[in-house]
Amino acid sequence: MNVVLLSGGSGQRLWPLSNSIRSKQFIKMFSNEEGELESMLTRVYRQIMEADPGASVTIATSRKQVSVIKNQLGDKVHVCVEPKRRDTFPAICLAAAYLHDRQGVGEDSAVVVCPVDPYVEDSYFQALKELARMAEAGDANLSLLGIEPTYASEKYGYIIPASPDRVSRVSTFQEKPDAATAEQYIARGALWNGGVFAFRLGYLLRRAHELLSFTDYQDLYTRYGDLEKISFDYAVVEQEKEIQVLRYNGGWKDLGTWNTFTEAMAGNVLGRAVLNETCENTHVVNELNVPILCMGCKNLVVAASSDGILVSDKEQSSYIKPFVEQMEQQIMYAEKSWGSFTVLDVQEESLTIKIVLLPGHGLHYHSHDLRDEVWTVMSGTGRAVIDGAERTVKPGDVISMPAGCRHTVFADSELKLIEVQLGKDITVEDKHKHEL
Amino acid sequence: MNVVLLSGGSGQRLWPLSNSIRSKQFIKMFSNEEGELESMLTRVYRQIMEADPGASVTIATSRKQVSVIKNQLGDKVHVCVEPKRRDTFPAICLAAAYLHDRQGVGEDSAVVVCPVDPYVEDSYFQALKELARMAEAGDANLSLLGIEPTYASEKYGYIIPASPDRVSRVSTFQEKPDAATAEQYIARGALWNGGVFAFRLGYLLRRAHELLSFTDYQDLYTRYGDLEKISFDYAVVEQEKEIQVLRYNGGWKDLGTWNTFTEAMAGNVLGRAVLNETCENTHVVNELNVPILCMGCKNLVVAASSDGILVSDKEQSSYIKPFVEQMEQQIMYAEKSWGSFTVLDVQEESLTIKIVLLPGHGLHYHSHDLRDEVWTVMSGTGRAVIDGAERTVKPGDVISMPAGCRHTVFADSELKLIEVQLGKDITVEDKHKHEL
Repeated sequence: MNVVLLSGGSGQRLWPLSNSIRSKQFIKMFSNEEGELESMLTRVYRQIMEADPGASVTIATSRKQVSVIKNQLGDKVHVCVEPKRRDTFPAICLAAAYLHDRQGVGEDSAVVVCPVDPYVEDSYFQALKELARMAEAGDANLSLLGIEPTYASEKYGYIIPASPDRVSRVSTFQEKPDAATAEQYIARGALWNGGVFAFRLGYLLRRAHELLSFTDYQDLYTRYGDLEKISFDYAVVEQEKEIQVLRYNGGWKDLGTWNTFTEAMAGNVLGRAVLNETCENTHVVNELNVPILCMGCKNLVVAASSDGILVSDKEQSSYIKPFVEQMEQQIMYAEKSWGSFTVLDVQEESLTIKIVLLPGHGLHYHSHDLRDEVWTVMSGTGRAVIDGAERTVKPGDVISMPAGCRHTVFADSELKLIEVQLGKDITVEDKHKHEL
Repeated sequence: MNVVLLSGGSGQRLWPLSNSIRSKQFIKMFSNEEGELESMLTRVYRQIMEADPGASVTIATSRKQVSVIKNQLGDKVHVCVEPKRRDTFPAICLAAAYLHDRQGVGEDSAVVVCPVDPYVEDSYFQALKELARMAEAGDANLSLLGIEPTYASEKYGYIIPASPDRVSRVSTFQEKPDAATAEQYIARGALWNGGVFAFRLGYLLRRAHELLSFTDYQDLYTRYGDLEKISFDYAVVEQEKEIQVLRYNGGWKDLGTWNTFTEAMAGNVLGRAVLNETCENTHVVNELNVPILCMGCKNLVVAASSDGILVSDKEQSSYIKPFVEQMEQQIMYAEKSWGSFTVLDVQEESLTIKIVLLPGHGLHYHSHDLRDEVWTVMSGTGRAVIDGAERTVKPGDVISMPAGCRHTVFADSELKLIEVQLGKDITVEDKHKHEL
């Protein structure tokens, strides 16, 4: 099965664990059976591969998420990078062209497009496989997944099927209704629209060529910035007569807010925390190295990361977005393709950072105009290149790099460094990449 | 006026702002009229000096508090150090001998002994002056301060005066009663025992020599570890017939728990924090550099420091002690006589620390057996001495100190360093001091 996972999101709703470069799907929140922490991304990837060991997974995403995807999944997935953000229709067209031109997927093959962040049971992925088979059989141009509603939600779009059968033609689509209207839809057998689309690749490419002017993947990539922002639902689904829907009645959760996110946690605590016996319905996620003590907390979510600390009533937590937008906050922690960095200390004219390089990875070869840097190696071994000269590095080694000096370091074993940046104007923009 | 401030306390009740080396009296929690932050210690010292610019203040304390007292008050106060912890009677005897032998205070001079942490109005210090005059006049051997009760507290001892006059002989003392008994005491005109004692120095020295075997201050200091733990109330006050009490009816608060401490805060927030409009009766104290966001919090105290994070219902916060005792936590921040240190990062075989040296101050000249250290200078200027060789230091300078190397650094202007410690066994015990 060919699966395209749509990975977007700004991550403000799950602040401080998510931020502008770390969306919710990358937060390691769930324990797998081995007790290791999984993110939504790695969880969904594992579930797909368990359902279909031969599945080919492509992640359609923006440039700024590539590093963290590589960090979490390495080269196990294809990554189709949107040069700019343009809603779901252009993104799915680009992914379709990528599958055809770069991966050699045939026009008769089925493709299943799915959000990257559903919190679902394994049976969901069996349903995706069935959807792929339905698409390949060609009974309809589009095959959708309809989630059996568990309550009259105002948050989702509804699919009204033509019949109550497990697989049915779609009668109509309805936008997010109010609760009373949702009740009426559900009484008529309506399903939540889970944002899953399956089709033959050739079908989608034809629709793409009808609506957009391009020759192939590379051409579409080049023109991408000029494309109109338009959703797949609006451009394709609502224009299509030949649509069928498959009912899914397994567990399905949209973990978009702290309130729903905490419901999916394995226990009440992730990280170092103690809750006394008078706490009720309180969840703590602590990414810091210091303990959190909660006493007499009721219906609270407490989350702490290098970016900040949230203490919120669970109901209230859904109103977080404007408050996070007001906080102009430097990124304090980020996962990169080569490892991660954590800002440890911020001074007026210096910044102290912990850098962790994964074995076999290195930084870009780069220089800065306006700051000096000093590396102190804490652990691991590797090789640094300083103005063209290579040297090995080991714990206790110190490397001073004045402004203008070209430098990089590669990890042989996991390499941990303290980097002290010194200068009057320390910015992420002050960075020149060089060929090594 | 000679004032002896008794400074003790383990600081568990105000965790994470206080810890085993940082008691509540050292937390900078209050704004003075200039908008600068004050601790209880610096606030009480300021209030004493405003009431009596000629006052001589001696702080009776344990060895581990000396650094932070010097950090906050420099050489403006005398510090009488107890070699071990031995309750209030030995501590007050040692302070009395110190005043007599080291400060040359005469036996007819009055001494006022007072806790370091009352949160009080300026009128309290006028009362202390009056108490000193009463003691010097010699109408009684002991002069106490009685606080007019504002409710039937079970937390305080009670003084029953012989008359309702402003100054009265004491009829009896009563231990902490239950609320009903407290009501009866108050109906009889009882006062809270504020822990303030005034006496002529000669009186106290006579009582000390009667009860303890010693010649002078130095002798008492040497024998101190062998003394019995006994309170001043038990050893002196309860044996004395000639006691008078002065009524004080100004503001007086015992800020021993988060619940009472937050009542004394100037506003709801100290440090970086945002409370949304649905928060009620919630106080935040944030010593970290990242923001705290509170939403829909009711009756909570939120406190964050390098040592940890507390989120507690205010009522519940008084039960904090056993939870803090369970947390075996490395000290992450400490004020020292020379400045402060903050632990930034802890790895298995390395520790990264930020060191701030105050101008004119330096570290002890020392070495470590089991760890290497690297300093990177972030800001300021000074002089380092490494194995006897002096060199100047400026921002960007790096100094590597292998195990065994003797080293120190002095600040000419405020000096900020990053220190990376490297080794398998990094402990505070691995430190040898040397003569420079």
